[in-house]
Amino acid sequence: MYPAKVTVTEVGARDGFQYEKTFIPTAQKIEVINKLVDAGVRRIEATSFVSPRAVPQLADAADVMAGIKRVPGLKLACLIPNHQGAARAIAAGADEMVPICSASESHNKANLNRSTAESLAGFVPIVEAAKKAGVGLNSAVAVAFGCPFEGDVAPEHVADIVHQLSDMGITNVTLGDTTGMATPAIVDRTVKVIQDKVPGTTLSLHFHNTRGIGLVNVEAGLRCGIDRYESSFAGIGGCPFAPGASGNICSEDLVYMLGELGVETGIDLTKLIECAKLVERIIGRELPGQVMKAGGRTKRFALDGATRAVG
Amino acid sequence: MYPAKVTVTEVGARDGFQYEKTFIPTAQKIEVINKLVDAGVRRIEATSFVSPRAVPQLADAADVMAGIKRVPGLKLACLIPNHQGAARAIAAGADEMVPICSASESHNKANLNRSTAESLAGFVPIVEAAKKAGVGLNSAVAVAFGCPFEGDVAPEHVADIVHQLSDMGITNVTLGDTTGMATPAIVDRTVKVIQDKVPGTTLSLHFHNTRGIGLVNVEAGLRCGIDRYESSFAGIGGCPFAPGASGNICSEDLVYMLGELGVETGIDLTKLIECAKLVERIIGRELPGQVMKAGGRTKRFALDGATRAVG
Repeated sequence: MYPAKVTVTEVGARDGFQYEKTFIPTAQKIEVINKLVDAGVRRIEATSFVSPRAVPQLADAADVMAGIKRVPGLKLACLIPNHQGAARAIAAGADEMVPICSASESHNKANLNRSTAESLAGFVPIVEAAKKAGVGLNSAVAVAFGCPFEGDVAPEHVADIVHQLSDMGITNVTLGDTTGMATPAIVDRTVKVIQDKVPGTTLSLHFHNTRGIGLVNVEAGLRCGIDRYESSFAGIGGCPFAPGASGNICSEDLVYMLGELGVETGIDLTKLIECAKLVERIIGRELPGQVMKAGGRTKRFALDGATRAVG
Repeated sequence: MYPAKVTVTEVGARDGFQYEKTFIPTAQKIEVINKLVDAGVRRIEATSFVSPRAVPQLADAADVMAGIKRVPGLKLACLIPNHQGAARAIAAGADEMVPICSASESHNKANLNRSTAESLAGFVPIVEAAKKAGVGLNSAVAVAFGCPFEGDVAPEHVADIVHQLSDMGITNVTLGDTTGMATPAIVDRTVKVIQDKVPGTTLSLHFHNTRGIGLVNVEAGLRCGIDRYESSFAGIGGCPFAPGASGNICSEDLVYMLGELGVETGIDLTKLIECAKLVERIIGRELPGQVMKAGGRTKRFALDGATRAVG
């Protein structure tokens, strides 16, 4: 009933690190990404070719890309805001580029300072550049399961955007749950409308754990046959809306759950936990991941009486 | 496919507060519980009649019980370690008593300092006292989905314990996921074996979010038709095994999810969030609940440009 194998895209190096105020040395970013590769992660959103003024943390995008150890099957994706970013990503050796728009006008305007139609029009030269360079494309559609300004987003509207992307030649699409408004019912409806209306699409789902049900939504996605999910090491990054709330779902928790559901990821959980702990040391504060603290369910504890709390 | 209505048992006042080192004034405990009642919670594990030496935090059990505003349909449950505790709980006006044992010998020994058989034998005078007083019983079976010392626990073994409880006249049973080892597959198997072998049982499920999938396990339980779940306000309390790991699943997150799944709880989410915030003020540190930080998905945010982070 679930897909036999799932691709987990690690987005922490982009969608996590970009929110960190203190600059993380380039060598540490590279170390983390190389450890992810060593753990078996094969799709990594490594950085973003946005303006260094907008996101100083990722000003070292080209240097990060240059430092990553390439292995067969590894896909390095880079977020790009426009065709200038695309040119930089191609020059840096990106395997895939991630242009972004929003499923609601208000969010597109707030996040990207233009209309959704303007964003999509801006994808045209990106598609041309990608074709010419032989680089893949995977568009991200933010607030696809609800908008914090407008509320519900009609699945038909999301499907219409996916259709426009398809017409442009972009058939890999990530649906972003930018502020954690997805629910199993909305996931089911949205995915099925897209599968029905734009059947050639390869969908990825990017959930946030803002309201505690990010992994429940993954399970709903699996039941729809979706085999691509995005997550962040140690659960870092994500929504700037609600102070203290979680953002991206956590990669180790996702990989743990997928393993327990009998879905193959090709990722070594123990090594992935080591990556998350490295990130926690680099960031220097406690991060939201659960499995990195508790270990897998096969972990055994000594009988030392520490449990004597009745219940 | 899911039950139309679910009973959420709030366990925070017992299973949460008991781990707090600083004594919470009795009046504050009562205030929290009365707010839960006002929010529509109708089954509350209010306290524990354990030895005050073992758990000083709950030494005020009888006073807490005396302070709770009773409304029609409200069930106040109390954990009891033995028949002395039962006598105190009955005197304090408990509607239900919760005797406890473990599904593994090692955990029963570590938690209760006796064998599972000895624990079950100790239930006999409790059942007699309950019958005489006209008070309900709901036994808790700890580590029902895995033991941190022994590993997997056979569903047939759990069913055997449930059978012994049934033979004694205890047909309400909570399966405790004490250290967060449950997975959807194990939940499905365990519940179905019990439904098959001891069909008259009313099961409650008590999950921990130790490995991030507590609510995924609730969804698995719903698919098995289980309509009783236990959770803790703000997600406090639970497992003493893994430093920093979560314990009990969070009541507001659970009630939010159930609402979004179309399952009725009779609980007002906004009022429940207020309870969680009150608990956070009382405890004085940030607590793990997510929905208490983010609000429900209908919450709208102002368009103030704070979101300009690209992605």
